[in-house]
Amino acid sequence: MRIEEMTSVEFAKAVKKDPVIILPFGACEAHGPHLPLGTDCFQPEALADEVAERIGALVAPMVRYGNHGSTRNMPGTLGLRPETLKSLVTDLLHSLRRNEVSKVVVLTGHAGGQHMAAMKGACEEVARCSDMRIMFLCDYDIAYRLKGEMVDEGDGHGGNIETSRIMALRPELVKKKRGKGRYVSNEFMVTADPERFFPDGFVGDASKATKERGERINKFVAEELSKLIVSNFGAMK
Amino acid sequence: MRIEEMTSVEFAKAVKKDPVIILPFGACEAHGPHLPLGTDCFQPEALADEVAERIGALVAPMVRYGNHGSTRNMPGTLGLRPETLKSLVTDLLHSLRRNEVSKVVVLTGHAGGQHMAAMKGACEEVARCSDMRIMFLCDYDIAYRLKGEMVDEGDGHGGNIETSRIMALRPELVKKKRGKGRYVSNEFMVTADPERFFPDGFVGDASKATKERGERINKFVAEELSKLIVSNFGAMK
Amino acid sequence: MRIEEMTSVEFAKAVKKDPVIILPFGACEAHGPHLPLGTDCFQPEALADEVAERIGALVAPMVRYGNHGSTRNMPGTLGLRPETLKSLVTDLLHSLRRNEVSKVVVLTGHAGGQHMAAMKGACEEVARCSDMRIMFLCDYDIAYRLKGEMVDEGDGHGGNIETSRIMALRPELVKKKRGKGRYVSNEFMVTADPERFFPDGFVGDASKATKERGERINKFVAEELSKLIVSNFGAMK
Amino acid sequence: MRIEEMTSVEFAKAVKKDPVIILPFGACEAHGPHLPLGTDCFQPEALADEVAERIGALVAPMVRYGNHGSTRNMPGTLGLRPETLKSLVTDLLHSLRRNEVSKVVVLTGHAGGQHMAAMKGACEEVARCSDMRIMFLCDYDIAYRLKGEMVDEGDGHGGNIETSRIMALRPELVKKKRGKGRYVSNEFMVTADPERFFPDGFVGDASKATKERGERINKFVAEELSKLIVSNFGAMK
Amino acid sequence: MRIEEMTSVEFAKAVKKDPVIILPFGACEAHGPHLPLGTDCFQPEALADEVAERIGALVAPMVRYGNHGSTRNMPGTLGLRPETLKSLVTDLLHSLRRNEVSKVVVLTGHAGGQHMAAMKGACEEVARCSDMRIMFLCDYDIAYRLKGEMVDEGDGHGGNIETSRIMALRPELVKKKRGKGRYVSNEFMVTADPERFFPDGFVGDASKATKERGERINKFVAEELSKLIVSNFGAMK
Amino acid sequence: MRIEEMTSVEFAKAVKKDPVIILPFGACEAHGPHLPLGTDCFQPEALADEVAERIGALVAPMVRYGNHGSTRNMPGTLGLRPETLKSLVTDLLHSLRRNEVSKVVVLTGHAGGQHMAAMKGACEEVARCSDMRIMFLCDYDIAYRLKGEMVDEGDGHGGNIETSRIMALRPELVKKKRGKGRYVSNEFMVTADPERFFPDGFVGDASKATKERGERINKFVAEELSKLIVSNFGAMK
Repeated sequence: MRIEEMTSVEFAKAVKKDPVIILPFGACEAHGPHLPLGTDCFQPEALADEVAERIGALVAPMVRYGNHGSTRNMPGTLGLRPETLKSLVTDLLHSLRRNEVSKVVVLTGHAGGQHMAAMKGACEEVARCSDMRIMFLCDYDIAYRLKGEMVDEGDGHGGNIETSRIMALRPELVKKKRGKGRYVSNEFMVTADPERFFPDGFVGDASKATKERGERINKFVAEELSKLIVSNFGAMK
Repeated sequence: MRIEEMTSVEFAKAVKKDPVIILPFGACEAHGPHLPLGTDCFQPEALADEVAERIGALVAPMVRYGNHGSTRNMPGTLGLRPETLKSLVTDLLHSLRRNEVSKVVVLTGHAGGQHMAAMKGACEEVARCSDMRIMFLCDYDIAYRLKGEMVDEGDGHGGNIETSRIMALRPELVKKKRGKGRYVSNEFMVTADPERFFPDGFVGDASKATKERGERINKFVAEELSKLIVSNFGAMK
Repeated sequence: MRIEEMTSVEFAKAVKKDPVIILPFGACEAHGPHLPLGTDCFQPEALADEVAERIGALVAPMVRYGNHGSTRNMPGTLGLRPETLKSLVTDLLHSLRRNEVSKVVVLTGHAGGQHMAAMKGACEEVARCSDMRIMFLCDYDIAYRLKGEMVDEGDGHGGNIETSRIMALRPELVKKKRGKGRYVSNEFMVTADPERFFPDGFVGDASKATKERGERINKFVAEELSKLIVSNFGAMK
Repeated sequence: MRIEEMTSVEFAKAVKKDPVIILPFGACEAHGPHLPLGTDCFQPEALADEVAERIGALVAPMVRYGNHGSTRNMPGTLGLRPETLKSLVTDLLHSLRRNEVSKVVVLTGHAGGQHMAAMKGACEEVARCSDMRIMFLCDYDIAYRLKGEMVDEGDGHGGNIETSRIMALRPELVKKKRGKGRYVSNEFMVTADPERFFPDGFVGDASKATKERGERINKFVAEELSKLIVSNFGAMK
Repeated sequence: MRIEEMTSVEFAKAVKKDPVIILPFGACEAHGPHLPLGTDCFQPEALADEVAERIGALVAPMVRYGNHGSTRNMPGTLGLRPETLKSLVTDLLHSLRRNEVSKVVVLTGHAGGQHMAAMKGACEEVARCSDMRIMFLCDYDIAYRLKGEMVDEGDGHGGNIETSRIMALRPELVKKKRGKGRYVSNEFMVTADPERFFPDGFVGDASKATKERGERINKFVAEELSKLIVSNFGAMK
Repeated sequence: MRIEEMTSVEFAKAVKKDPVIILPFGACEAHGPHLPLGTDCFQPEALADEVAERIGALVAPMVRYGNHGSTRNMPGTLGLRPETLKSLVTDLLHSLRRNEVSKVVVLTGHAGGQHMAAMKGACEEVARCSDMRIMFLCDYDIAYRLKGEMVDEGDGHGGNIETSRIMALRPELVKKKRGKGRYVSNEFMVTADPERFFPDGFVGDASKATKERGERINKFVAEELSKLIVSNFGAMK
């Protein structure tokens, strides 16, 4: 199901059936002292494969870098300017169009304000000049619908949801020592050192995270996203 | 207090006291059938004057255009690409720096995702390469703190808050016939015709809007913003 | 007549009649010790309203910043790079086109070389790729036709013409002490401190300025511009 | 060794030892009827891990898209404009610098003319404005040193070398039917359909490829690259 | 004296004496039915050599393309967007700086509004970020000082001055049949077909042009420019 | 045959016959202690004239600057960023298209990696969006076909081929003292001082160069290029 593993001939044949292509984006970003830098890659990567399996979609190679604001100065955050990210998404969507692809799900595991805006801007511009149909979302937005039920309101970057999900996917990469991360209001100040508003490097109660919860969240997100895609684009299988 | 009304000599003298400069941004955007296109200008324009009066700040000329997504195709929306907006904010901040200004409040009356990201990106880049201190906010975010108390959750673009505020500021420009505007979920689809998710052209219950409520909201926002600025930058008077 | 004061519905209805839209540009620029920084805004702003009234045009929100060369380092000059200004004009013209507008008058109160080139370049590029008809001018060029008759040749930035016009429009903002401003030839040198070629900060004899002269100039410019627009675009009323 | 699998804390600690960081780039590109689209990813990905193991380097997340010329219109080629690729490399190098990294190996599995120029241009610009030391190479250039010995001169895209290497790395993805690919001279014509100069979609004799040869080539490249890095940057272990 | 004819070693030696470098710009532009497309090259090219000889300056290779507005659609006009021209001038000035050059005369034979603005913008930006001293001018501006004396006011593109000068420089390229070219006012309209305001393709009375007049103008311009350069930069010889 | 020497009317008439246009590019670049900085101009300039004479083509004005990597810091190298060069080529090709030209030979005398990529990228983009047919080549590539026969393998920048060719074209500009230039491997390091890999400033055995050899090479290149053009575009005469 991964495009990288198909030959040119196989891809050409598969595209004739007008499949949904999932184009996943991750990030290399500090996620507190307990989670790996690839946290925002591991989640949408597994999700894309799972959803593709469920609905018969193809998965394009993942982009493993995004744009970062508040974690920008934290060790291990490697990223792109929003302009670069926007060009990247634009180019890939145009490449897909040249390949006669008409249904694309742009899925990002990271959700910063400028990151989302750059990606959405690219999607909009391509949507305006073509008949390609594009969904754009962060899987966290679906997971966060479980707030109240499984997780606390205010849970965020590197918190309960993300820690649980990574425990389910890559348990060996999650540290045992996991605490609670506070967010300190910046009172609308824009500064060169935004990390001081995240004194713990993450936000939420990571101590509550469990592998089981992660599995349930991952399953929920996969089911919901599969339903949404089928609802928007129609069934494949 | 308005920079436009000062001479070069007066401005040079005023800047020596290290004042706060408020740089207001509005928009020319469809706001439903009952509100004027300048809705997002009239609110921060009055607010900037009021706050400047309270704390002894200067007000720079307002930029009356922004970036628009969902209202982009509605009649009367006139706007900028996010790249242009980002350049604009960047250039103005650099101009202020060259004028020895060190405290700036970038205040926007419009709050779309790409609009905010473009403006914030500009503020961040200037903050990173200078010692200028910058606040960046949309006054709507302060007004919305009154939800529950004065307005419904889910009130939005052209709804109760905005209608009330414009009734207090420019009552002759608000139409008598005012209904309720729905938001239809786009299910993450990015389309060339996003207006179909706003079938009424606005979101919230505009029929509940009153001039008195608008006056109270405007006063609340002016007080809160004044306090925030003084808290961040220190008192002037 | 101001677009900002119309609703989306009113604007849509007005555009159906194929009106002329006046898109005015000002500047925030040092104009000597006697004139306000908004001098280049106040003139075209009043002119646009007056002409719109005469010929039945609509006035778009004014852009209150431009590009500055020789006054760039003078206190209070706040401006844009030429690239930003060109993008701004381009975006607004495209927005007007999307709104089915076909006749635009781009009117600027400021007239620097790179400022005019940036704006004209934008107008040309839009004219080349659309059927929108565009006029582009600085009102000073019309006022300057009165040289010999009412003002001295060589009158310029912040001189007799501009001082008189602001005395007619915003008399409270003009200082009583008004002298004569010299221009010192730069002998084609391009320097980082071009203000030294304007040792007084303005050019011309501001001591000759009177309110009456300003009123006559303003009337002359409004009449001439109205005639030009009707000649180019046909009559509305 | 993979940065994605480290926490922010672990990364910060590792960087203190001034390690070499390998930043690998691949491509999603048609490679004839017998090889997968991810051919240019699989090679440098395995190589980066192997070299990192040998010399104690860290591996950054791979960028899995590049710029394509002659294969641009072949099914499955998904890529970036050279400008986007250059921005991407530039941003990542600057991110590494902000993280106090001083030794970087930019390794690409794809080697088109504009692809290499975009990447090299980025490396040069960063090298000129920083003290970061940067190596930039395509692993194919090392593998090709074996021509005469193991492979024919003229072997190229999707030919004997690449097929053998993928047979060693991902044998299940290589088709059994493998022929010979011709290159037809374009006589310096630049065309919109460059694929006609590659009538078979690849260049070289893929029928000669064997897994054993691939293993030997992969070992040779890993040894040579390890030696080169140690020679340029000094030993780590 | 031409840089192209010097070796690297000779250039390095010459630069040690801190010479003036003349960087000439021409154009490939329609100049009416009687003048060659290279008219704006031939004038500054000869002038640069003459002035360099007089004052001991070096001449850099000429850029033979510029930006064109009103002649843009006339056969034989080949040119650049203003953005490209600005980058070109910027890059060459930075190259000269890297070569330890500190005195540059940017001389253009073409003088359109956007052409001049692009070039001047580049000169200004380099002047602001370096200590390089830069003169920027069009030789036509010096020649035009002879109006009244030798040529009519209103003489312009391809008129008496330019025709006379080319008759003195390249007489074999000037056609015998030479008339009078009118300029028709565009009344501030910006159009896609600006050539209709130049119905003859040139402006001025070319029938009055003579070789002798051209020689006198060329001599005058060379003398004046030499004096200006020495006045601005000091004497070399 | 040179476009610069034609009038607009003559050019329009010539283009009606659908001629080949040769657009030559040179460089201002250090070429060792024995060759002039304009070496890469003089070769394609003479070649373009010769080929145009043979096949009845037109020659556009030469661009005398390019992009430089390894010689960038050597005295006398004056050049452009690759982005500027790409814009330049793009603009000129679009200008030619607007002039109804359909056959273009973009000929460059300089052949650096990023230089070639920038130029080729421009040619490709124009080829993709128009029906203009474009050849793109460096004349050195044709001359180098004589290796083995007339020159050593490994001969390069400023070596035997280039020295011989300039001896044939501009003998007075070639120094008598001519040695052998070595290339020192950079082992894939990208550095701010790439000149250290060219300790002599050129590569090859310049002592073997002779005027006669240069004449034979020049004749060979002119014949081969003429044949290639006729083969690609058909005969003119």
